[in-house]
Amino acid sequence: MSDTVTAFAPASIGNLGVGFDMLGLALSGGAGDRVIAARSDTPGISIEEVRGLDGEIHPYLSTDPRENTASIAAQSLWDAAGATGGASLKVHKGVPLQSGMGSSAASAVAAVVAVNALLDEPLETAGLLPHALAGEQYASGGLHADNVAPSLLGGLVLCPTVLLPEVVRLPVPAGVSAVLVHPELQVNTAHARRGLARGYSMEQWLQQQGYLAGFVAACMAGDIDLIGRTLRDVVIEPQRAGAVSCFENVKEAAMRAGALGCSLSGSGPSIFALCEERKGLNMASAMEQACLALGIECQSWVSPLDAEGARLET
Amino acid sequence: MSDTVTAFAPASIGNLGVGFDMLGLALSGGAGDRVIAARSDTPGISIEEVRGLDGEIHPYLSTDPRENTASIAAQSLWDAAGATGGASLKVHKGVPLQSGMGSSAASAVAAVVAVNALLDEPLETAGLLPHALAGEQYASGGLHADNVAPSLLGGLVLCPTVLLPEVVRLPVPAGVSAVLVHPELQVNTAHARRGLARGYSMEQWLQQQGYLAGFVAACMAGDIDLIGRTLRDVVIEPQRAGAVSCFENVKEAAMRAGALGCSLSGSGPSIFALCEERKGLNMASAMEQACLALGIECQSWVSPLDAEGARLET
Repeated sequence: MSDTVTAFAPASIGNLGVGFDMLGLALSGGAGDRVIAARSDTPGISIEEVRGLDGEIHPYLSTDPRENTASIAAQSLWDAAGATGGASLKVHKGVPLQSGMGSSAASAVAAVVAVNALLDEPLETAGLLPHALAGEQYASGGLHADNVAPSLLGGLVLCPTVLLPEVVRLPVPAGVSAVLVHPELQVNTAHARRGLARGYSMEQWLQQQGYLAGFVAACMAGDIDLIGRTLRDVVIEPQRAGAVSCFENVKEAAMRAGALGCSLSGSGPSIFALCEERKGLNMASAMEQACLALGIECQSWVSPLDAEGARLET
Repeated sequence: MSDTVTAFAPASIGNLGVGFDMLGLALSGGAGDRVIAARSDTPGISIEEVRGLDGEIHPYLSTDPRENTASIAAQSLWDAAGATGGASLKVHKGVPLQSGMGSSAASAVAAVVAVNALLDEPLETAGLLPHALAGEQYASGGLHADNVAPSLLGGLVLCPTVLLPEVVRLPVPAGVSAVLVHPELQVNTAHARRGLARGYSMEQWLQQQGYLAGFVAACMAGDIDLIGRTLRDVVIEPQRAGAVSCFENVKEAAMRAGALGCSLSGSGPSIFALCEERKGLNMASAMEQACLALGIECQSWVSPLDAEGARLET
């Protein structure tokens, strides 16, 4: 048990195109949130500060512990552990808000990992998932683990709601990279979710289900060709693409550069592609160029598929 | 090239509960159709006879080559191969009609395997799938490979329409058996399909999609516990169970006997369960008893998950 600990939790790609609400991939490359937790005499979880990418006090995020995914997640763990006294959090956001990169999930995950290290009897990592989910639920308005699970555990995770809190780490094929481009646009996840159609035809969902089942099989078999034939979203992407003005151009650029598939990360505006490792840098450049050509600033990351999950920092 | 050949194609479990239209399992234990094909001077494919389980001329099935899945499948292959002359088929049905055991698929598969052996340049087994499908499509009214693919290739096959003619053989966990009970009832597949709802909520399909993705991962990882948590059909089974009067009782008996999961085979009336191998015989008995207790005669099979697919017989 320490008095002050720092945890880092990476950004992540929710849905991964083919697996709405149930598939997610951790990102490497340094995009992530940090939470510094310290024992405090005030009972329960409090927030000392929330800082943004620029190191300044965050202009939007609340330090009210009832209104921040980090503190809600940490409080859930604190209560479950029956811990006495309190803990105070410093939340340092490294993942841009409403970017489709799992910003709220990264805060929730970093918070539970940090606070867990303050407990007399810390839980196993997998046991932290329900608490991180409690925080994420506040932000997204639903019980979806597709950002929380990969941010916590790393790599590629299958996490359908029907199996929660159990999740399945999927093996990933060697030699494949994820490229993520974050255009300087914002999409509100909860709002994007409310905009989705409520009714669907059987044909539509059987198509999507077929792609997802095939994608899972492809990952487990290390079959890169099959990944290329199954990394598709025919249900959600068509409904959301219009809200991200650069999407079609960026996707076209990615596919032309040889992507195995390309779709929105979460509800966007970030856009990801999977591709053979050797094409990663070129892919990032092609996608960025397509964005810039429309006058939209952007940032990109290239990540292996087996990126590390959340961890304590010394 | 031979003058007369005999091919056997096994019965199969379509949908396998969790994967409507896209998952199927071959059955061992002798249930299957035989097609004896011989070169003939009459151009194209003709049918010499169709016999039933009792060895007598089949009372319902047509010998008109335009109305039998065996001949339609064989003709498709014959045309694609540019073969000259003709072939005549004897179709010996071992799979009961409208049983949910892939009867029409077994005839189509046995026919293409037999006729392929008559060709000067026989195709690889996988190349026969589109032709068997052409026959099956006549019977079921849609392009579904969940009986044809396992009957042709054996074992457990993932075959979503979006990937056809490609299909994915899934590895299966050791120590798991399939039990199938066929009650003496009939369900017409095409009719059962027309009775399905056309519209579905997102929640419903996300649940089912989550189960299927988890089931595929479970099979590939050999995770029997996870098979038990994912072998579920929350979309189709509730719509079809009512048409099979013994379904609820048989399922209850199977689950009480320790099944990992239990659902309709295809559109029924056959009912299957997966279970640990050592429970197989007891499971079959429990399911049969539940059927007989309702005054319904039945027959059962216990099969490994890696049953052999269609083959030539000497």
